Amino acid sequence: MKVNIGISNRHVHLTLEHANTLFGKELTKLRDLVQKGQYACNEVVTIKTAKGEIPNVRVLGPTRNYSQVEISKTDAYKLGLNPPVRTSGDLEDSEAITIVGPNGEVQLKEGCIIANRHIHMNPETAHELGFCNDQRVCVKIDTIKGGIMENVHIKVTDDGVLEMHIDTDDANAFLVEKGMMGEIIDGD
Amino acid sequence: MKVNIGISNRHVHLTLEHANTLFGKELTKLRDLVQKGQYACNEVVTIKTAKGEIPNVRVLGPTRNYSQVEISKTDAYKLGLNPPVRTSGDLEDSEAITIVGPNGEVQLKEGCIIANRHIHMNPETAHELGFCNDQRVCVKIDTIKGGIMENVHIKVTDDGVLEMHIDTDDANAFLVEKGMMGEIIDGD
Repeated sequence: MKVNIGISNRHVHLTLEHANTLFGKELTKLRDLVQKGQYACNEVVTIKTAKGEIPNVRVLGPTRNYSQVEISKTDAYKLGLNPPVRTSGDLEDSEAITIVGPNGEVQLKEGCIIANRHIHMNPETAHELGFCNDQRVCVKIDTIKGGIMENVHIKVTDDGVLEMHIDTDDANAFLVEKGMMGEIIDGD
Repeated sequence: MKVNIGISNRHVHLTLEHANTLFGKELTKLRDLVQKGQYACNEVVTIKTAKGEIPNVRVLGPTRNYSQVEISKTDAYKLGLNPPVRTSGDLEDSEAITIVGPNGEVQLKEGCIIANRHIHMNPETAHELGFCNDQRVCVKIDTIKGGIMENVHIKVTDDGVLEMHIDTDDANAFLVEKGMMGEIIDGD
């Protein structure tokens, strides 16, 4: 079965407190994302370490009960980091990173991860398709640099909209572009 | 069967004439590569287009009868290019790019490609392993962001040393690091 692929560039989620520190005001919506209630903000930050920095990193809203920086392995080399591959919110022993906004900065002792490949869906879709939350599946990508992405995490949430999320390294390695689909094959 | 993986960062091959234009002298060896007779040079260039440039791109020697710039898709976005995925030397209708050295610059009308995933070997190894030149195989990568790379080109040459070459996008997407191995599985 086919699934739409969304490509996640590096981005930041913030607590309300950290958003206030960085911007001195509430986050403002630039555009809605596919996942219900999620949006790209007008606000951007610089993420930095002792070894490097990356400017213009988009903040995604709404605020959460944790702050988190999601980067690719390519970004990680620039920043001199070795972030674990994790699902959102699973931040224990993840990498330290500093977030700089126009109004202030926030030093996260942990919070920087490489997001795992995952597929969002709601419980009805999961039931129909025969998947369960936290299951791992494989997804086949049909391009000239295609192949199979393993260890793709099924994330079932009430508001989930069927969509696979991959990072820019996966997109660029497999030559996946906006609007492409993957094919969910055997679980692994 | 397992194969050593070499990660190819962006790099440039030059004709003798272009090397002279760029450097005003012969290429000099920095270190040998795994493939016999191939070496990284001390010389680096800037590659550029109307949309961007990337400095410190390594030249590989010895000189060839064609000049060629091998980049990743990530690099291609920075440069505003859409290079085809090709084997070395297959440059027809590949992307135009400018190479800048300390002594001059060279404008290639074509020559910029994304290298295809490939595995070098000599005829004896190919015979032993049951592969033939130009065959395509799949290679399994066993990491937490692992999977299967399809459309991997078997390149049989007299001097070939058994080694798989992937670009930095593939390496970063699959979390492949120096010294890792892949497993050649079914042809496709």
